[in-house]
Amino acid sequence: MPERTVTSRLQLSGLCFLLQTLTIILFAVFVRYSPESSAELCLQQLNCSRRKLDLGFQHPRFRDGHLQALLGFGLLVAFLGRYGPGSVAISILTMAFAVQWAILIQGFLHFFLNGKIQVGAQSMVSADFCTAAILISAGAVLGRVNPVQMLLLTLLGVTLFSLNEYILLSLMGVSDSGGSLTVHAFGAYFGLMVSRILHQSQMDKRKEQQDVGPLSDVFAVVGTIYLWIFWPGFSSATTAHDNAEPWAVLNTYFSLAASTLATFVLSPVLYEESTPRMVQIQDAALASTAVMGMPGEMLVTPFGALVAGFLAGLISLLGFRFLTPVLRSRLKIQDTCGVHNVHGLPGILGTLLGTLLAALATADAYSGRLELVFPLVAQGSRTATDQALCQLCALPVTLLLAALGGGLGGAVLKLKGLRSPPDTRYPESKVLREVAEEGPDCGVSRKEPGTSTVV
Amino acid sequence: MPERTVTSRLQLSGLCFLLQTLTIILFAVFVRYSPESSAELCLQQLNCSRRKLDLGFQHPRFRDGHLQALLGFGLLVAFLGRYGPGSVAISILTMAFAVQWAILIQGFLHFFLNGKIQVGAQSMVSADFCTAAILISAGAVLGRVNPVQMLLLTLLGVTLFSLNEYILLSLMGVSDSGGSLTVHAFGAYFGLMVSRILHQSQMDKRKEQQDVGPLSDVFAVVGTIYLWIFWPGFSSATTAHDNAEPWAVLNTYFSLAASTLATFVLSPVLYEESTPRMVQIQDAALASTAVMGMPGEMLVTPFGALVAGFLAGLISLLGFRFLTPVLRSRLKIQDTCGVHNVHGLPGILGTLLGTLLAALATADAYSGRLELVFPLVAQGSRTATDQALCQLCALPVTLLLAALGGGLGGAVLKLKGLRSPPDTRYPESKVLREVAEEGPDCGVSRKEPGTSTVV
Amino acid sequence: MPERTVTSRLQLSGLCFLLQTLTIILFAVFVRYSPESSAELCLQQLNCSRRKLDLGFQHPRFRDGHLQALLGFGLLVAFLGRYGPGSVAISILTMAFAVQWAILIQGFLHFFLNGKIQVGAQSMVSADFCTAAILISAGAVLGRVNPVQMLLLTLLGVTLFSLNEYILLSLMGVSDSGGSLTVHAFGAYFGLMVSRILHQSQMDKRKEQQDVGPLSDVFAVVGTIYLWIFWPGFSSATTAHDNAEPWAVLNTYFSLAASTLATFVLSPVLYEESTPRMVQIQDAALASTAVMGMPGEMLVTPFGALVAGFLAGLISLLGFRFLTPVLRSRLKIQDTCGVHNVHGLPGILGTLLGTLLAALATADAYSGRLELVFPLVAQGSRTATDQALCQLCALPVTLLLAALGGGLGGAVLKLKGLRSPPDTRYPESKVLREVAEEGPDCGVSRKEPGTSTVV
Repeated sequence: MPERTVTSRLQLSGLCFLLQTLTIILFAVFVRYSPESSAELCLQQLNCSRRKLDLGFQHPRFRDGHLQALLGFGLLVAFLGRYGPGSVAISILTMAFAVQWAILIQGFLHFFLNGKIQVGAQSMVSADFCTAAILISAGAVLGRVNPVQMLLLTLLGVTLFSLNEYILLSLMGVSDSGGSLTVHAFGAYFGLMVSRILHQSQMDKRKEQQDVGPLSDVFAVVGTIYLWIFWPGFSSATTAHDNAEPWAVLNTYFSLAASTLATFVLSPVLYEESTPRMVQIQDAALASTAVMGMPGEMLVTPFGALVAGFLAGLISLLGFRFLTPVLRSRLKIQDTCGVHNVHGLPGILGTLLGTLLAALATADAYSGRLELVFPLVAQGSRTATDQALCQLCALPVTLLLAALGGGLGGAVLKLKGLRSPPDTRYPESKVLREVAEEGPDCGVSRKEPGTSTVV
Repeated sequence: MPERTVTSRLQLSGLCFLLQTLTIILFAVFVRYSPESSAELCLQQLNCSRRKLDLGFQHPRFRDGHLQALLGFGLLVAFLGRYGPGSVAISILTMAFAVQWAILIQGFLHFFLNGKIQVGAQSMVSADFCTAAILISAGAVLGRVNPVQMLLLTLLGVTLFSLNEYILLSLMGVSDSGGSLTVHAFGAYFGLMVSRILHQSQMDKRKEQQDVGPLSDVFAVVGTIYLWIFWPGFSSATTAHDNAEPWAVLNTYFSLAASTLATFVLSPVLYEESTPRMVQIQDAALASTAVMGMPGEMLVTPFGALVAGFLAGLISLLGFRFLTPVLRSRLKIQDTCGVHNVHGLPGILGTLLGTLLAALATADAYSGRLELVFPLVAQGSRTATDQALCQLCALPVTLLLAALGGGLGGAVLKLKGLRSPPDTRYPESKVLREVAEEGPDCGVSRKEPGTSTVV
Repeated sequence: MPERTVTSRLQLSGLCFLLQTLTIILFAVFVRYSPESSAELCLQQLNCSRRKLDLGFQHPRFRDGHLQALLGFGLLVAFLGRYGPGSVAISILTMAFAVQWAILIQGFLHFFLNGKIQVGAQSMVSADFCTAAILISAGAVLGRVNPVQMLLLTLLGVTLFSLNEYILLSLMGVSDSGGSLTVHAFGAYFGLMVSRILHQSQMDKRKEQQDVGPLSDVFAVVGTIYLWIFWPGFSSATTAHDNAEPWAVLNTYFSLAASTLATFVLSPVLYEESTPRMVQIQDAALASTAVMGMPGEMLVTPFGALVAGFLAGLISLLGFRFLTPVLRSRLKIQDTCGVHNVHGLPGILGTLLGTLLAALATADAYSGRLELVFPLVAQGSRTATDQALCQLCALPVTLLLAALGGGLGGAVLKLKGLRSPPDTRYPESKVLREVAEEGPDCGVSRKEPGTSTVV
């Protein structure tokens, strides 16, 4: 059917052209670089509550704009490495569009001033967080959506992410600097809901792909290394202060270390191999960073980070072993890259831990830091218990928005024009074929190690 | 012919020893670390106009020497990844020697004081830029020169690059912080001219190598990721200021994002595949950073970066499809890694855009920044139109120097002693053989995707 | 023998659980984040001599905590890349536990105050250095110890490293910021001694593994690139000052460049191939950074770094060609990754160079820097000759501690319960099998290129 293929090709080309043209026009009309003293401007503005409050500390937060942006994109890299080269072209397209769209949507919500969006290093970091959430969602549906569908999903996902972030951070005053809730949990459940709606009976019949060749492990190694290097800096990008010790960074490192040992503790019990596979180590590492997103800057003692990281590592492994099969067979949710175990559950765990820490927060324990972590509590406009309640309420709000949005997104993607028929559906066949040759695609690394001891 | 092989081996060994000894002696005689207050010294000196002028802003620019150097070498990495492991030993040799030689030549031109070259983090960043240009040139001739020839080419290329840079930045007062002209255009046309002179009829007869195996795509993925992470910081390394928002970084990111969408727009039209190959995405990304070299810090609005990046992505793809075959058949210029499409044309486009922006520059639009971007205009010693004329004149000057230098270099390389006979010519056979096994060499990734739909 | 396998699996799982629980309890009891003004606290304390003295310069050293930690883990990455994916799971386990244990042991020695260990970015960097030494030791015994043994070795190695570091830096006032002696030499000789004790006659009979496939070179390329990017920053992590030019960084870069040329000079003479293999370039690069550990911040002129790097490159190559076979056959020391050539000898060379430079140190040559590099000399409490003697005496102290510790460690590992019988010994068979498939394990890259010209 060459004709249909031509149509499908030009559909993607046309959509990309349309979206890029639209973005350029919107940028031309609305987006300007913020003047040098953007921080001061922000103070005069009601809308940017999170930023304004932080500025009470009076430090130029994004002086090292280079570094911040550098670290931010390191995060994206970790995803790209994890999802494997077979799906990387689509991931990069998603990333390239999500960054532009996030600058616009978040700009309207957070940085809108005198009819213009004020863009700076700060906006880029925010857009990065948003892109990370979209890439997490993509991990749930990779291999079953074509690029056109992925772009539309990005359009919707970015908008909902920004809305949720705005409600949580600006309206509810929730403290979630590393994005346990806004990034990890939102991204995971949005993607899972889309996956549920897209479920088609014949999809299950395709035989499970098998892990092929050594490249899969190589990618897991590179991905794990990227995580160790870049993520601690990223998840604390919005909490960097000149004079404060980087608690969020250190907590994330401790969490990473503990999650690795957790993998070595649990993997030999669950599977017949005596050492864990690299993908398991990588997943545990990812889970341990997701769990540190919210409590990362709240933990006053490092041993809390060790405990949380250890638990996250266990959860990730247990989820893959027991939960993913149940999700697939009972709830008909296919989770290509296991984002539920790696981002969803650890994100929720991080939120609960953050709630607990907020309830326990006292001025004594935090001293000068209280203003950074819980500005509203420090200013006396809210008690620690109220803050904890807010943190907890943010969880159902986020899950509701993610589920509703995912349902909407899935319904849109099932519209007839978008659903290319299976035989010409490009990305799946492409991904699968490349998988057969290369193996490193993430849906593929999920082979359960116990099923064969030969490897 | 083992005897000839032994001679060829020892020729390389001897040349390396000679060059390293020469460098050590010159370093011992001339090079010293600059005293702590190097910036102030520079102020008392006539020669370092670019640096002096920037210091009008009175900021310690290279306080984060670590970071700067880190980012600089990230650039080199991007090249190494792109040229593939088959040619990486030669590339690293080139880099190792070019850095040392650039410190010396640029030192004599820019940092010479009281009979000594004052070396610091700043010199290292400058040497990095120079090395980048040499690696670009190498991309045009890879696989057809042996290491001995490559070292001689480096010797000449570094000298000419530094001369051109000195003429443009110090004498003409051109603003080209990211090197659209000095790095990308100079490197590309110098290499292409050498390639033209080295052209031999029998070279064309060797059958076109074919893209082999999945490693090619893996390298393209890693290379693209490196670009996203490291290049924005690199191309703005000389414009980093404490209090200024990092416009050059942000513009480069926007340009990268738009170039990716451009690839998805044009690739399905030009070729029969529905999504672009990773090497195409990588080439577009590289082109989009080349185009941002000069205008990166001049663009007052982000939408300009989107437009420029989009155009650069289109140019890169169109060049590979239509221009490279013409260059090869008509002009007898073989361009192993397509540097003309990826560095040459986008570099020229960036220069033209920079000229336009210089002509439009007003104190209002730039406010405090004018002193950073166009110091001579800010000081009133030059009008914006004059500055634009200077920017434009820099283009023919650079092209002339690159072409003459490339001609000279090619002629030297054709001298009898250097031209190893084809059968013992090491690097080509080595590169080709490794290519047959591994595939990721860059000349190889140029298979036109449309020629077969099987892949 | 499935039963024995189950025991071996659960042994690792149990040990990991035990160690992690122990660490969490110790962290809960002893470890707290240091208050904001940790630097000032340190001043009031006797124990942290090195840090206190540096603070004479009155600069907030770890303001860029992000960056420091980032760079630190880059180092670990370089090792992981070098040791290859076959051994990476064990390396990451080692790293994850070593970091936690080092925080505790170093904390008791350096950061203990009011019954609590004060943890901050500085402790993380110190723990990184320690972990690097342990990974170097692991390089000598990789493939011949199981994970349980490796964890016990880590337990002992971290303790001895911290003790040695405390004696050298705090008690003897030795200046070794980049760890030529404390990290490289200690790590290498500790590992080699363990390797000697573990020597079993039947081990030698296993046939030498052969270099397989192109992945080996790919890993060497990636590893070399990581070295160039991350190590210069790492080896100067403790010497970063705001107002000082980063001499240690620049010296390391020059050293790296010269070592690459050294490889191209010597390799064609020693072997029959005309260009060096990538692993040789990588080893030379590693040796050149090891040699710059101590003298990196002492070298007043860059040409010294060029000479030292050149020598280190030569030593590394000569060691692999002539010394490693002697070690194996005469001294019965198997050195899986050649750490003696890459870390041991260059570390000693660096120490000798540092001694020489300390003897030559004058206030004139260093000006304001003397206080940073040799604080005791600057304060007049010690002459330059005394300082040089101290630097020299540190060498036998370190070697003695490493040898005794290695002997002890080897003896412990030979205890019956730990020595899994050869047929069920997990890591070796696993590593070897993966090696047969992938090739990139480091013991494997040591094939002598001269033995076959086909490759």
